[in-house]
Amino acid sequence: MTFPVVGMVGGGQLARMTHEAGIPLGLKFKLLSDTPQDSAAQVVSEVVIGDYRDLDTLRAFAQGCDVITFDHEHVPIEHLRALEADGIPVRPGPDALVHAQDKGVMRAKLTEIGAPCPRHRIVSDPADAAAFAEEVGGFPVILKTVRGGYDGKGVWVVRSEADAADPFRAGVPVLAEEKVDFVRELAANIVRSPHGQAVAYPVVESIQVDGVCDTVIAPAPDLAEELAGEAQQLALRIAAELDVVGHLAVELFETRDGRILVNELAMRPHNSGHWTMDGAITSQFANHVRAVLDLPLGDPRPRAPWTVMCNVLGGDYPDMYQAYLHCMARDPQLKIHMYGKDVKPGRKVGHVNTYGDDLADVRERARHAADYLRGTITE
Amino acid sequence: MTFPVVGMVGGGQLARMTHEAGIPLGLKFKLLSDTPQDSAAQVVSEVVIGDYRDLDTLRAFAQGCDVITFDHEHVPIEHLRALEADGIPVRPGPDALVHAQDKGVMRAKLTEIGAPCPRHRIVSDPADAAAFAEEVGGFPVILKTVRGGYDGKGVWVVRSEADAADPFRAGVPVLAEEKVDFVRELAANIVRSPHGQAVAYPVVESIQVDGVCDTVIAPAPDLAEELAGEAQQLALRIAAELDVVGHLAVELFETRDGRILVNELAMRPHNSGHWTMDGAITSQFANHVRAVLDLPLGDPRPRAPWTVMCNVLGGDYPDMYQAYLHCMARDPQLKIHMYGKDVKPGRKVGHVNTYGDDLADVRERARHAADYLRGTITE
Repeated sequence: MTFPVVGMVGGGQLARMTHEAGIPLGLKFKLLSDTPQDSAAQVVSEVVIGDYRDLDTLRAFAQGCDVITFDHEHVPIEHLRALEADGIPVRPGPDALVHAQDKGVMRAKLTEIGAPCPRHRIVSDPADAAAFAEEVGGFPVILKTVRGGYDGKGVWVVRSEADAADPFRAGVPVLAEEKVDFVRELAANIVRSPHGQAVAYPVVESIQVDGVCDTVIAPAPDLAEELAGEAQQLALRIAAELDVVGHLAVELFETRDGRILVNELAMRPHNSGHWTMDGAITSQFANHVRAVLDLPLGDPRPRAPWTVMCNVLGGDYPDMYQAYLHCMARDPQLKIHMYGKDVKPGRKVGHVNTYGDDLADVRERARHAADYLRGTITE
Repeated sequence: MTFPVVGMVGGGQLARMTHEAGIPLGLKFKLLSDTPQDSAAQVVSEVVIGDYRDLDTLRAFAQGCDVITFDHEHVPIEHLRALEADGIPVRPGPDALVHAQDKGVMRAKLTEIGAPCPRHRIVSDPADAAAFAEEVGGFPVILKTVRGGYDGKGVWVVRSEADAADPFRAGVPVLAEEKVDFVRELAANIVRSPHGQAVAYPVVESIQVDGVCDTVIAPAPDLAEELAGEAQQLALRIAAELDVVGHLAVELFETRDGRILVNELAMRPHNSGHWTMDGAITSQFANHVRAVLDLPLGDPRPRAPWTVMCNVLGGDYPDMYQAYLHCMARDPQLKIHMYGKDVKPGRKVGHVNTYGDDLADVRERARHAADYLRGTITE
């Protein structure tokens, strides 16, 4: 059979779950991973160990791949252009990915296409950050290094000019943004294929704790239908304008005055879409793979009225397997997704999904399982 | 983390799909496969290539496995006893598996525990087969070699004594069974754990074509509730009496006079349970893995009113991937499961699942996709 070879750069849990979703399609999956212990490297047959920052490594890896896609957004753009020049399809391509790599480029482009953003500009030093604060009504403001941040890293809430020194130490440009008065965070997730087909998942509510995604509720409770539609349209438009291929997560603020503003973009399967593994007809991972292969996309609709995802963070108790006994016995419908990672306090090592008709019940079940696995509750 | 290592003997599609189901649980999966091209060997990280009929190979493979389970029932029973003597848990164990390996042993045991079976006895030669036919009301009767058959192989419908020579040529005992006047075939699938917990899936209808499973409908349409309950109770009782651990498929005849009779037993995930991958809260593969690890079992209930599975057999057209375009575009809810096997006419190379509220529609969608993938229809 002439089944294609999907080359996945990066061995994290997103690669692991993409592999899982690719197995039923009969795809051949090839992984470029930093170490053999990485989450995906544990479960994939064909693994190349190497550094994605090295072009020769990437070129050798890409040999025999029909398409290259990503577990993360950190591959240097110039390397991606070199692969494209070699004739390897790279999806999403460098012209799209640059917007997920560089928050300055992202804000400029979103502003250009009229996508609603917090007020923002690049600032040159703490005094300039103070000037920006003045422009948007005063401190606090948000400072972000334009590259290299994730899960709250590379982001500072700054309350004074004296407070604003840290972000500039990294030596990369610093983006200042107004601190948005939001009531909650949402995510509009879509998948788009090279030929332009796109599907939109229900807009979800994403609850962060200490800058890390904690809980996702699908669909977002009590979200006005009009605002949900607006968020989906916005994500579809961003994907089309930026020529995104694959999964695009548009993280949004819902403001107190009823608007949505774009917070971040992620051009890969995303934590806010993990609920789809058990809660949607087609998971984000299955649709991401279908998109990068330019296959028709699968139905994104939910299978249950409510699905809740809770991340499982590492705690002090390293033996999560032992906790399966209680969690599985307590809730035979619970869906556990572990990533094969060593437990370190605060590290995302897995997630759980629950679904059903009663949101309070669904949410309690997910919360309980995540807490029990982490070891913060013992019954 | 102290996650266990599951050793899977056999590299076919059942092993492939069990691996897929084990990934979310964070298990370590180790495969003993005949060749690196086998269905499961293509997608598993840790593969040992070797012959399961060789005890030294099995012993070396079992090193470092916390439990051994199976893709098929062909591992010699004495080897399994040797592994057990080495202290390796073997699930299902040899005392159970012998009933799935040897149809003579199976019939004797089922008769002993009062499970309803077609009339049967071991016959010694064609003349004895003719004598058996006389006892059950005349030809035709069914002759089966007690070992080595599957998918219709090793089974003969015999219409005369002259017709009865073939089964005896293999040199293994031959079991004669009455040809049951059945209206359809059913399967009662259950999963049982070492500590005795068990779950029963809805009883399904299984439609065979040329002795090979073609379509499975879950639940079996118009099956009397009482008969469905009786079938589930029967499967649970057989599992308990035979001390089965893991998935047990009890293939049944529904007779014209409203009884059920046991046709075959399979002690592993089974084709009649493939619908559970998309149609049940917990798939047969996930529950098989949970059972062999003695974890609490997952909810076996269906997620949709109807789920239909159709096997995809090899046809004359080898490029099934190209057929994805049409199938996925026509039915965005279609679930394709391909096994990575080369296409050979009549070979099971995958299956499709569909689900929904309207059985006629669900069935038409699965039928269409399977036929299109095989190449017997072109639109």
